[in-house]
Amino acid sequence: MKPKLSALGEFGLIRRFSPAFMKNLPPDIIGIGDDAAVLPWKKDACLLVTTDMLVENVHFLRTEIGPRDLGAKALTVNLSDIAAMGGSPRSAFLSLGIPGKLGIEWLDAFFRGMAELAEASGVHLLGGDTTRSPGPIVINIVVLGQVRRTRLKLRSGARPGDLIVVTGFLGDSGAGLRVLLEDLPRERDEARLVRRHHRPRAHLAEGAWLAARDGVTAMMDVSDGIDSDLRRIMERSHCGAAVNLDDLPLSGPLRRAGKKYGWGVRGLAASGGEDYCLLATIRPDRYERITAGFEKTFGRPLSRIGTIEGKKERLRYRTAGKTVELKPRGFDHFR
Amino acid sequence: MKPKLSALGEFGLIRRFSPAFMKNLPPDIIGIGDDAAVLPWKKDACLLVTTDMLVENVHFLRTEIGPRDLGAKALTVNLSDIAAMGGSPRSAFLSLGIPGKLGIEWLDAFFRGMAELAEASGVHLLGGDTTRSPGPIVINIVVLGQVRRTRLKLRSGARPGDLIVVTGFLGDSGAGLRVLLEDLPRERDEARLVRRHHRPRAHLAEGAWLAARDGVTAMMDVSDGIDSDLRRIMERSHCGAAVNLDDLPLSGPLRRAGKKYGWGVRGLAASGGEDYCLLATIRPDRYERITAGFEKTFGRPLSRIGTIEGKKERLRYRTAGKTVELKPRGFDHFR
Repeated sequence: MKPKLSALGEFGLIRRFSPAFMKNLPPDIIGIGDDAAVLPWKKDACLLVTTDMLVENVHFLRTEIGPRDLGAKALTVNLSDIAAMGGSPRSAFLSLGIPGKLGIEWLDAFFRGMAELAEASGVHLLGGDTTRSPGPIVINIVVLGQVRRTRLKLRSGARPGDLIVVTGFLGDSGAGLRVLLEDLPRERDEARLVRRHHRPRAHLAEGAWLAARDGVTAMMDVSDGIDSDLRRIMERSHCGAAVNLDDLPLSGPLRRAGKKYGWGVRGLAASGGEDYCLLATIRPDRYERITAGFEKTFGRPLSRIGTIEGKKERLRYRTAGKTVELKPRGFDHFR
Repeated sequence: MKPKLSALGEFGLIRRFSPAFMKNLPPDIIGIGDDAAVLPWKKDACLLVTTDMLVENVHFLRTEIGPRDLGAKALTVNLSDIAAMGGSPRSAFLSLGIPGKLGIEWLDAFFRGMAELAEASGVHLLGGDTTRSPGPIVINIVVLGQVRRTRLKLRSGARPGDLIVVTGFLGDSGAGLRVLLEDLPRERDEARLVRRHHRPRAHLAEGAWLAARDGVTAMMDVSDGIDSDLRRIMERSHCGAAVNLDDLPLSGPLRRAGKKYGWGVRGLAASGGEDYCLLATIRPDRYERITAGFEKTFGRPLSRIGTIEGKKERLRYRTAGKTVELKPRGFDHFR
C-alpha cells in the first residue's frame, strides 16, 4: 500500500524528512524546529532566516481578501517569525507564481500593500522570482533578520514552573475566518474580526522587548493556535503544560460575536490560529517585574494563560477548576 | 481596458515593480538586477541570497522528470545563481506546496535527490515550509552563499572590447526538452540530451575560479539562453554585443541529433535555455592568460562566442561573416 501525504499530516511530513535536513549540522546553526533558522553572523549577532508559502484556496480566497491586505499579510506572517526569535527583520525576497489572466491592478495593489508594510518595518524588498502559475496564485516570502546572540529566544528553553503568557488577544483571526466562511452579516464586530484575519500585525516591538528580558525562557509566534503551537514548545523543551481556558484573553468583538452566534469562543481562542501575537514562557521569580514592565511599555497587559509542567509532554486544559478536553485541534494543512 | 500580466511579460513585470523594491536601498546592498542579491556580511565578505520558484506544468512535467532528478535540479538552478556571483553556497531553505494525493515515495525520492546534491555541494538544508497545494506541485528554494568582497562579479562590469565566453556547451538542455515534447525515440544521443535537461550541473568551481581573475569583468548564468541572458548584461553594463553563431560550443549529441532531425542547432544553442553554464566577459589583454589557465584547471576550453560593443544596447548575430536575425527569442514565462 502506498502511503499518501494526507495520511502522514504536516508534522508527520516534517518528522519524516527533517533528518536529511539536520545532517552534519555545525553546532552554531539551528535548522528546523524553531520559528526561524539561526546562522552565525557577526561576533555578537546571529542571522535569522524564515520562509512561508501561501497558496490560493488553501491560505486565502481571492474573492475575500483584497490584494493590498494580502501583500501585507504575506509579509506579516514572516515578520512574525522574526519577532518570535526576538529579532529585527532586515530584508525580504518574494517569489510569486501568478496566473497569466491576473489583472495588473491586482498586482499593483498587492505590491503596494507589501511595500508599505516593508517600509514601516524597516525591511528592504530585495527581489525574488516571478513565474506563471497554471492554477493558484502562489506567494513565497523569505525574510532575513538579525538578533543579538545573547537575546535569542528559542522554543527549547521552557522549564517546569514557568508561566505561559501571550502578547495579544486570541481567537479574533479564527473568528474572522468563520465570519467569512459562514458569510455572516458584516456588522461592526464582525467587520473588526475579519479585519484582524486579513490584517494581522507582527508583534516585533513586543518580541524585541521580551527578548531583552533574562527571565523569558522560550518564545514563538501564535500561527496555528496555542493548542498546536504550545505543543511545539513542549516538544522542544521536553515538558508538559496546563492552560486555564478562562484566562485566554478575548477581545470585545469576539466576546460579543461569540454570544450572538453561540460560538465556543474559548475553543476558537485556543485553536483558531493566525493570531500572530507571541507566546512566551517566563521564570516565575521574574514574572511580576516583566509583566509590569510590559504593561508600562505597551499600555496593555501580558496575559498569563497557564503554567509549564513536569516532564510528560501532555497539554491539560482547565476551566472553572476542572480538567476538560479541547476539540478540534489546530489547523493541519494535510488533514 | 485592464492590462493583463500576459501583455506585460516577465521582464515588463520586473521593470514595473522593481522601483518599489529598490526604494531607499543603502549603497552596500544590491537588490534586483543580478543573479543574486548582495548584502553586507563580514568585513571582507558579502552574503548572497537567491530564490527560484518552480511550478509543475510550467517548469517541469511530473510525467517526464523523476522526483530524484527534480529535487536535484530545483537546488541546481539556485546554486547556479551563486556560481554566477563567484560565490560558495552555504545553506538552502525549501518551501514545498504539494497535492494531498501525492505518494510518499515520490517525496522520499525528491528529498533524496536534493539532499545528495546539497551534501556534495557543502550546502546545509536548514528547513522551510510545507503546505498543501490544490493543484500543481510548487517548489521554492532559497540559497544563501558567500563571496569575498573583492571577488564579486556583477552583470554591470562589461566594457566595449571585452570578449564574451561561456564555460560549457549550449543548447543541450533545450534540445533535451525538444526530445521530450516531441516524444522522439530515446537513442543514445537523445537520452544524453534529456539527461542534460533533467540533471544540469551548476558551474560552482568554474564560477569561483573566474571570480578570482581580475580580468573577468561581468558574469551571470545561462538560464534563459544567451540571447536573453546576454541582453541582461547589456542592460546593466550599457553596452551592445556581437555574437558569432559559428562559435557557439555544441556537444556531439546535439550536433548529431540536430543533423538527424534537421534542427536549427545554433538557434537552440542561443535561445534554448537551462544550460546553467556561465556567461562571462573578459578584458582582451587578460584573455589569453585566463583561457589558458581555465583549460589547465578544468581540462576543457573556455569558449569565446563574441565581443562586447559600444554604447548602443544592440545584440548582433553573425554567421559565415554575415549579420543575421535570430528567432525566436529566449523563454518568457508569461508569453
